[in-house]
Amino acid sequence: PDTQSERDERHLAIQRVGVRELRYPLTVRIDGRAQGAAATWSLDVALPAERKGTHMSRFVAWLDALAQSGTALDAAGLQRGFAEMLDKLHADEGRVEARFSFFIRKQAPVSGVSSLLDYQGAFIIERRGAATTLWLEMAAPVKSLCPCSKEISDYGAHNQRSMVTIRAEVKDPALAFEDLVRIAETSASSEIWGLLKRPDEKWITERAYENPKFVEDLVRDVALRLNADARIGRYRATVENFESIHNHSAFAVIER
Amino acid sequence: PDTQSERDERHLAIQRVGVRELRYPLTVRIDGRAQGAAATWSLDVALPAERKGTHMSRFVAWLDALAQSGTALDAAGLQRGFAEMLDKLHADEGRVEARFSFFIRKQAPVSGVSSLLDYQGAFIIERRGAATTLWLEMAAPVKSLCPCSKEISDYGAHNQRSMVTIRAEVKDPALAFEDLVRIAETSASSEIWGLLKRPDEKWITERAYENPKFVEDLVRDVALRLNADARIGRYRATVENFESIHNHSAFAVIER
Amino acid sequence: PDTQSERDERHLAIQRVGVRELRYPLTVRIDGRAQGAAATWSLDVALPAERKGTHMSRFVAWLDALAQSGTALDAAGLQRGFAEMLDKLHADEGRVEARFSFFIRKQAPVSGVSSLLDYQGAFIIERRGAATTLWLEMAAPVKSLCPCSKEISDYGAHNQRSMVTIRAEVKDPALAFEDLVRIAETSASSEIWGLLKRPDEKWITERAYENPKFVEDLVRDVALRLNADARIGRYRATVENFESIHNHSAFAVIER
Amino acid sequence: PDTQSERDERHLAIQRVGVRELRYPLTVRIDGRAQGAAATWSLDVALPAERKGTHMSRFVAWLDALAQSGTALDAAGLQRGFAEMLDKLHADEGRVEARFSFFIRKQAPVSGVSSLLDYQGAFIIERRGAATTLWLEMAAPVKSLCPCSKEISDYGAHNQRSMVTIRAEVKDPALAFEDLVRIAETSASSEIWGLLKRPDEKWITERAYENPKFVEDLVRDVALRLNADARIGRYRATVENFESIHNHSAFAVIER
Repeated sequence: PDTQSERDERHLAIQRVGVRELRYPLTVRIDGRAQGAAATWSLDVALPAERKGTHMSRFVAWLDALAQSGTALDAAGLQRGFAEMLDKLHADEGRVEARFSFFIRKQAPVSGVSSLLDYQGAFIIERRGAATTLWLEMAAPVKSLCPCSKEISDYGAHNQRSMVTIRAEVKDPALAFEDLVRIAETSASSEIWGLLKRPDEKWITERAYENPKFVEDLVRDVALRLNADARIGRYRATVENFESIHNHSAFAVIER
Repeated sequence: PDTQSERDERHLAIQRVGVRELRYPLTVRIDGRAQGAAATWSLDVALPAERKGTHMSRFVAWLDALAQSGTALDAAGLQRGFAEMLDKLHADEGRVEARFSFFIRKQAPVSGVSSLLDYQGAFIIERRGAATTLWLEMAAPVKSLCPCSKEISDYGAHNQRSMVTIRAEVKDPALAFEDLVRIAETSASSEIWGLLKRPDEKWITERAYENPKFVEDLVRDVALRLNADARIGRYRATVENFESIHNHSAFAVIER
Repeated sequence: PDTQSERDERHLAIQRVGVRELRYPLTVRIDGRAQGAAATWSLDVALPAERKGTHMSRFVAWLDALAQSGTALDAAGLQRGFAEMLDKLHADEGRVEARFSFFIRKQAPVSGVSSLLDYQGAFIIERRGAATTLWLEMAAPVKSLCPCSKEISDYGAHNQRSMVTIRAEVKDPALAFEDLVRIAETSASSEIWGLLKRPDEKWITERAYENPKFVEDLVRDVALRLNADARIGRYRATVENFESIHNHSAFAVIER
Repeated sequence: PDTQSERDERHLAIQRVGVRELRYPLTVRIDGRAQGAAATWSLDVALPAERKGTHMSRFVAWLDALAQSGTALDAAGLQRGFAEMLDKLHADEGRVEARFSFFIRKQAPVSGVSSLLDYQGAFIIERRGAATTLWLEMAAPVKSLCPCSKEISDYGAHNQRSMVTIRAEVKDPALAFEDLVRIAETSASSEIWGLLKRPDEKWITERAYENPKFVEDLVRDVALRLNADARIGRYRATVENFESIHNHSAFAVIER
């Protein structure tokens, strides 16, 4: 019996039905290297009012074929794969999201010693009506230093780790995660590194002190750079400062 | 020096700026009792392009006054308080969200023995343009049993814990968290309890077996009930089954 | 049939069996006020080799009675209640843990403006052999400023939020969560607050700059204060700095 | 100035000081394949009472060299690397922990269709006094079905996803993560898969119904298998059932 294919009498379409919290390997090419990750996937389709259910196992079969193809996932591959998924599920609309960690090798600013820094990434592709949209999402840890604290204090200024998250609609597949990382890092009071020698620590400390930014400044500087990049369509830029003088965060969001 | 009040030259408005991940006490009246909770708050306002910064400390001052008022928060109180917050921040638009756990005392279905069950709740109020919208959000744990597994198997059927999350726009302040709980629980294969005696366990086991539901059935039955309640405007109903035959979830979403 | 009471033939005792991730209300008296919280409970007992199973529902029945008693939980009440739980489960050994958020009202250092700060607390009581041990656990957010960064830099010094976690064996029931909070906060580069005016922000910035501490300094200063308090038996002090120049934490642990 | 190398006058040794929550890539060979993962590392050493501080950057430098070596990490490599880390930090005692996700390809029980299932793994190596101990930790999702519910009900039985976590001291480096996975999965009411066809779903449903287990049964069956494996020294076996008739877990722990 194919219970899922029976007719449903409730006259209610379902916008999204599928699987989530599904861990499956993903290979992605970032920073010039193929990086393997245990991605967390969310896969869903729209279900018309008259159809009782979708075929959940097809999502996993599709993902397994994608994972076994052995090539690093990029914009073109995701678009092709996504069309196949909708076909396989007999669906007109749907969505794929894959979240993962990735690494970029960075040189410390003075000593030049190199190490990896970790970022969060996501591919999101969605079809609604006749439009398919691809998004890249990236979260980068940076340092922020408070202008007010610097100005009012005889010495020192409070500073903290911040997270810059950018979700960018891809207008041109040349747009890469590294581009979003650079936008985030150059907008902060200072970028940060995994491994630092003493002269590097001095450099970051002084750099951040010379370059104080409110959370409002940081999100605006990110938005200015996003506005200047023609490969990006709509976006949402979020900055969160894990305040070192409070037990809560300051945050700001600009959407276009 | 009032650095935050300086003029900003980047010509970029900020849709949301404020504080988040702020724990502060909340008293809420649910199930006939005033319940104290450590809520997690997110408070923000829109900032015009020409203003350099908002006044972060005013959010906390506002929240402290709200918390000290000593009364249980309800729709009317939140609307009044929210208007004061916007005033205090000189803002035209903004948003308040408070997330918390709450409890409802329930009687087991056969023995009648009583215990508390925990739910997740949230108040969300937002002003954009001239419109202020209030949402209640509630997440209830329930039980789902798979119709396909029951039909194809000689005995038994796989079942699992599910989470039903409802975000409902409040058209009538008479709408209460308990109403959303009832909609979620009556739509499931079975509701669940904290404390059960043996006859209760038999009852739930058989009840779920007699009442199998796909995740699609569950979300549609929730939507039918939401559609029938005139106190509710727009909504988003999400059901997630923590599948017991997989290490991932099945999920479905209906939005209106 | 009482399946759980059957004889087990595997000759394997179970050190801990029970329930966990159980949310149930808790009232606790801290900072002179009865505070309601949605605590997360873990309740378990030891099971002898010959017994097939424990009676899971009795844990919840016990907890419901405790919650309904209406009084704020303290050391004496927990010890009494715990003995009843072991009785009810016919167990010689067992353990109760309740984790919750609590709040303390604090005055900002210059303006005196008051607000609440949130902390994490836990009661842990355990019986092994003939010995029953009661622990209080408390986690306090504080500020740390790096001595090395200050020394090598021409201006500024990196600083960040840190978490001080103390688990202390209670030798004298006069020991309170507030005592552990004071030990944590006075050991840091600076304590922190929820609400600060500009002169307070100046005070904290300068105070931290004048009082730099490595994670090793911070954990040792906490340990010195714990050693000086005769109400405390064994302890574990952990400090974690959410480094603002890295995307990882520095941490240190002293146990006695 | 080498502030960290100064003499400390507090006369307090620190058992553990280092870095944690550090994401760095790890390659591990499991299921016959080299698998890349974004591991979360915790690295620490003991610090004598007279030494003011450790050298935090050396942990990251050591880890970067390990990651760059390009070979999959195994017991022998970890033991060698760990000795180098202690050397580099001039430490007599210390600890390394790396947590990561891994995948095993599995064939569904009837259709034979193959897919990956995800597990959590960890390497833990620690030196205290003269003894160095290596642990493997593995968490596997499985299915449990309640014997009591089956016995008292006219039809059906409640079942749910469970997590079996095994931490095993490695006495013989031939012990592999796959061995721990097999012990966990064969002890459950049924193992689970990522991808199932209808005949597989029937098989699991009936298999679990024929093989009911309390959390106590499951943990004891795991312990029996661990006891029978001479490559394993001390261990801790934990089973957690995400109960489908409650909003809390049942759990049991056996340690040797």
